[in-house]
Amino acid sequence: MTPHTTRYRVIYGDSDPFDVVYYARYLDLFERGRTELFRTLGITYRECQDRGIFTPVRETHCRFRESARYDDLLEIETTIGFMKKASIRFDHRIYRADPRALLAEGYTVHAFVNCDRAVVPAPADIVEVVNACIARQNNPQ
Amino acid sequence: MTPHTTRYRVIYGDSDPFDVVYYARYLDLFERGRTELFRTLGITYRECQDRGIFTPVRETHCRFRESARYDDLLEIETTIGFMKKASIRFDHRIYRADPRALLAEGYTVHAFVNCDRAVVPAPADIVEVVNACIARQNNPQ
Amino acid sequence: MTPHTTRYRVIYGDSDPFDVVYYARYLDLFERGRTELFRTLGITYRECQDRGIFTPVRETHCRFRESARYDDLLEIETTIGFMKKASIRFDHRIYRADPRALLAEGYTVHAFVNCDRAVVPAPADIVEVVNACIARQNNPQ
Amino acid sequence: MTPHTTRYRVIYGDSDPFDVVYYARYLDLFERGRTELFRTLGITYRECQDRGIFTPVRETHCRFRESARYDDLLEIETTIGFMKKASIRFDHRIYRADPRALLAEGYTVHAFVNCDRAVVPAPADIVEVVNACIARQNNPQ
Repeated sequence: MTPHTTRYRVIYGDSDPFDVVYYARYLDLFERGRTELFRTLGITYRECQDRGIFTPVRETHCRFRESARYDDLLEIETTIGFMKKASIRFDHRIYRADPRALLAEGYTVHAFVNCDRAVVPAPADIVEVVNACIARQNNPQ
Repeated sequence: MTPHTTRYRVIYGDSDPFDVVYYARYLDLFERGRTELFRTLGITYRECQDRGIFTPVRETHCRFRESARYDDLLEIETTIGFMKKASIRFDHRIYRADPRALLAEGYTVHAFVNCDRAVVPAPADIVEVVNACIARQNNPQ
Repeated sequence: MTPHTTRYRVIYGDSDPFDVVYYARYLDLFERGRTELFRTLGITYRECQDRGIFTPVRETHCRFRESARYDDLLEIETTIGFMKKASIRFDHRIYRADPRALLAEGYTVHAFVNCDRAVVPAPADIVEVVNACIARQNNPQ
Repeated sequence: MTPHTTRYRVIYGDSDPFDVVYYARYLDLFERGRTELFRTLGITYRECQDRGIFTPVRETHCRFRESARYDDLLEIETTIGFMKKASIRFDHRIYRADPRALLAEGYTVHAFVNCDRAVVPAPADIVEVVNACIARQNNPQ
């Protein structure tokens, strides 16, 4: 099993005067990656919201290896780092598609909270599909 | 009376590979200008929201004359273009402070709507201070 | 012939507190649309740059009809408005894919300039493919 | 001695559907903070560029404690974490001004590189003023 991958084309609006993607934009890419990974698991953030479940970012880290440049086609690989009672970590790797190179890698840790921003346990159905996803990550066939 | 002015310092995150401010960022500057103009009139958008009054942008236009560059200190001049029963136009001019030059000019037209996004008349207290502002614009002393 | 279409998925980073796409982001979508239209014509902005040809935005306009919301799949339709000796206009329409609705429409006018930002005639090969594209727009089969 | 502080007003364009500042925007604030800290030390990034010295971000981390909201006035506190032969770390803390609260804290690590993106020792004059700044941080009076 290969990690979940989302593609993204760099525009001028993402790039800074050094003709590389501005470092904050990588966090947008991280969001794009985890949203699409969740969609493949049958979960959408929109539905989570409608159920009163929110997952604000508590922590993020990114290490920049090579620069993404204007018009590059990027591949955002996203896996689940861990699933705890009331938090989840996504691990993200950003690649340039051609010639393929790892450009950046990082993670985001999210809490599960309700409408009042109080921490709550992750819903059972989400825990189930996320754990199944982690199992597939650990036992690729 | 000089027009209301808000200052803004350009960062790398605003600038594109040509070392000029990306064109979409000017709309952020327009927002910054009208928000601060309203604040000087005793109106904050936060309070409008709390009263259930929203002012979504219906139309915007911008003409780009010279380029704002990284680290430029910009001056955002904002005036009121018109105030109608249920809409308002802000006129914006973006200057580089030093050496002073007009970089861009444009406008935004906003509707007044309620929580259900239905168009509503602008509240009387807002109409009053906005019309007083327009009168001062027309009769500078 | 249907107009050239590029798809884009709205993320939280595009959306504002009213759960609609922030108005400045539409200009990012416009860029995405014209870049991909040009790519289908065999032109990339990256190659233009390498040839010392740049096309800064001189003017933009956008009318907002309905709101794009978080997680909407958008369709960016781009056509060529005109091609003059040293300038070009792109016309953009942003649709929500499902249920399909026109959300915004606007244009961007660009100059052709060289490395010194002096206006220059558009290169003959670009004029040719752009005019062929306009002809196909006008005579759809 | 209090840490260097830069103020910033949150606009709608910074805020997401939960009415809090989108997490990627904090990295823009970090840039704003380190740029202004350097300016107080007599260094501008613009001048560094002109000398062929660049400081790309190699790593960033941010922990989010409370949410910055629309129209909040923020205070960006920036200190120097370390200065090594060819790298520097900035430590950033984002506060809401009123009522005062620590919202986020993080760091950015930068390499010193030349035009060819090869790592180079930090210039002696920069090392000198940065080390003087660190000394003042450690011995506030």
